[in-house]
Amino acid sequence: MSNISTKPLSGFMELLPEEQQVFEQIKSIIESEYRDSGFIPMDQPLLDRKEVLLAKAGGETEKQIYELTKGDTELALRFDLTVPLARYVANNYGSLTFPFRRYTIGKVYRGERAQAGRFREFYQCDVDIIGNENLAIGYDAEMPIAIARVFKRLDEEMQTGAVKIRINNRKLFSGITEELGLTDTQSLLGLIDKKEKITAEEFEKSLQELGLGEETLSVITAFLDSSLEKLGQLGISNGVFLEGVSELQTVLNLAKNSGFEPEQFVFDPTIVRGLDYYTGTIFETNLVSYPEFGSVCSGGRYDNLASQYTSRSLPGVGISIGLSRLFDQLLKAGVLQASPNKTASQILIIPLDEQYIVALQTQKLLRESGIVSEINWSTSKLDKRIGYADKLGVPYVMLIGENEVADGLVTLRNMQTGEESKITASEVANAL
Amino acid sequence: MSNISTKPLSGFMELLPEEQQVFEQIKSIIESEYRDSGFIPMDQPLLDRKEVLLAKAGGETEKQIYELTKGDTELALRFDLTVPLARYVANNYGSLTFPFRRYTIGKVYRGERAQAGRFREFYQCDVDIIGNENLAIGYDAEMPIAIARVFKRLDEEMQTGAVKIRINNRKLFSGITEELGLTDTQSLLGLIDKKEKITAEEFEKSLQELGLGEETLSVITAFLDSSLEKLGQLGISNGVFLEGVSELQTVLNLAKNSGFEPEQFVFDPTIVRGLDYYTGTIFETNLVSYPEFGSVCSGGRYDNLASQYTSRSLPGVGISIGLSRLFDQLLKAGVLQASPNKTASQILIIPLDEQYIVALQTQKLLRESGIVSEINWSTSKLDKRIGYADKLGVPYVMLIGENEVADGLVTLRNMQTGEESKITASEVANAL
Repeated sequence: MSNISTKPLSGFMELLPEEQQVFEQIKSIIESEYRDSGFIPMDQPLLDRKEVLLAKAGGETEKQIYELTKGDTELALRFDLTVPLARYVANNYGSLTFPFRRYTIGKVYRGERAQAGRFREFYQCDVDIIGNENLAIGYDAEMPIAIARVFKRLDEEMQTGAVKIRINNRKLFSGITEELGLTDTQSLLGLIDKKEKITAEEFEKSLQELGLGEETLSVITAFLDSSLEKLGQLGISNGVFLEGVSELQTVLNLAKNSGFEPEQFVFDPTIVRGLDYYTGTIFETNLVSYPEFGSVCSGGRYDNLASQYTSRSLPGVGISIGLSRLFDQLLKAGVLQASPNKTASQILIIPLDEQYIVALQTQKLLRESGIVSEINWSTSKLDKRIGYADKLGVPYVMLIGENEVADGLVTLRNMQTGEESKITASEVANAL
Repeated sequence: MSNISTKPLSGFMELLPEEQQVFEQIKSIIESEYRDSGFIPMDQPLLDRKEVLLAKAGGETEKQIYELTKGDTELALRFDLTVPLARYVANNYGSLTFPFRRYTIGKVYRGERAQAGRFREFYQCDVDIIGNENLAIGYDAEMPIAIARVFKRLDEEMQTGAVKIRINNRKLFSGITEELGLTDTQSLLGLIDKKEKITAEEFEKSLQELGLGEETLSVITAFLDSSLEKLGQLGISNGVFLEGVSELQTVLNLAKNSGFEPEQFVFDPTIVRGLDYYTGTIFETNLVSYPEFGSVCSGGRYDNLASQYTSRSLPGVGISIGLSRLFDQLLKAGVLQASPNKTASQILIIPLDEQYIVALQTQKLLRESGIVSEINWSTSKLDKRIGYADKLGVPYVMLIGENEVADGLVTLRNMQTGEESKITASEVANAL
């Protein structure tokens, strides 16, 4: 034995069994809703060549990346699921059928400065639909519908509450600034992206400081306050803008009529989603009761998934849930409670008088009625073994000793009430 | 676009959708059988401090490890699931209830020389039960039972055939060599470990070359040919040996009476499982029809899980399935076939005459009857869209146009037979 620290690395989530069980529940809800939305599973290596991962990446990403060398090859851990997807689609172009619909739930790595709620290893849960040369706007509408489906299940099973799925289209801003003749749009876009995090006065002041001219300012301000219906009153006739409005109307109309609560789908001209990746529809999702979480699921439409690897035009649309962060936030906010049990078993079978084989056969019988149990093989005294069941938090204990075997029965004890009943093994399923 | 290679790294599995779906099926069978055997899920970081991972490791492991440096910290990717488990149990000792039963299905990394069927990133599927100070022998018996359960399901769903679960106990060999006064047992053990891979003559010759003396040789040879019943006739009265025999009898007796096919559990004195990690019961598993696969699930009892991190005695027993390799072998042997479909959806809904909203609402209805579908949003001509359905391999196409909507029906087309029927959406579940 040495003095090696047994703590996990800082920024790397490692849960106790009581928490892990809840994490797995959320993960499996997301997975099953993605799958039931007609996406197929994909699982890719976590390591890739550094030049592959960084082909398109900029400064921040490059600083955060975990890199290593094996033999002569410079490798890195993936920092998102989209770059490996791009490589995959370019590599398997001839074998795939487009639109290609896949989901991936997997870990990604970013060596950010460690701080509360920020993880260096974390799960992303992505769906993307990739087209070949073109991709109809209806596919964009599938994204808010998939978000609605996932969060409806999460609300039903874990009371996470309603969501607001905010939808915008980058073509609106592009069209407006094109028509207004603005050439440097990056600082304006960056300011809009920050709007939610600063006060109205601060926003107003920073907007003035951009020196945009009065007319421009009034159009921008009117746009940021506009509803979908009032977009026509901005007086913008630019083709890109009108295309954006039309796409937005289609996406909102389809989402609102998909059979999920229509009010959760809202147009929000203030969402931006980074500066240059997305080109059309964009999404952010907030939990209505927990605005402080920030966006829990985001994404959008991009013109070209894999321009760094192929000359083919592969437009796509996708969303991503940052699962590790969401779980951590829900747990800290008290929305999720760690399971009271340290086991997923419903019954702890305690064989007495060495009735081990009957215990095993009973366990198999229970399993066939869908009941998960475990056997306590300890030779300690009964009260110690009951104490173990108590610590484990298992709901029922089943005693099988000579008397039970002679009567062809088992003793079932409810650990909460202490109540005991002698019944046949096949009656147990009903008794639970 | 650049000339970056889009291939995955050599030794890193990356599957096409048709293969990935089958991989996911196997993974989910293993996971559900582990869970139903009363194990709880655990998910740990893939990265750890290098000193943690290498605290107990020897030369080969150290050469194969993927290491990296981030900031001042020397890190490495985990090369198995047991070392991180040991750190976890040491770190969370006070919060866990023992025996601690967990499963982990996750990727591990070994930079072995790339060769057919060897992966550098691969899935291990482990279950372990860890005791505090002691762990009853009955827990050892749960391992072959869990193996039987997993491979029974795999056989039922994927025709992998019967398995032979070979069971031995290291105390037999330890007791015999102790009684015979052999001090250097490593080369003998290494030779037995190789027995299956060499001819009987080669084995005989190498055994002679160890220079063990005639009496010793005859005992060893008799042991290696012995059945469980004949172990008593070896004339060994050593306490360690007798303890091993008793444990072996218990494990075999329980496994054979657990309700699973008794003949699959066999005593095999020739299995060794490495030189120094295991201390009691050991397991290897072979697919009866595919002996060339080697062991597909192995494990055993170890005295002390975490001696490198804690002075507490934490005995355990566990097994591991090397999933990536098993999947690859089953696929190459033709036992598994890649799915004929590039989608998991049962129906491709093709809206005609812009009946998008009815399509979405029908999709939701289908989903509520458990049917996964996807919508084709393309505006191409119908025959092109049917051609897409064909390439996708989706079993059914559903047409929803003005006529269908007027009649309150949908057109369901069986893609195999070409047969079409006009029915109500709620009749679809029965029609499939």
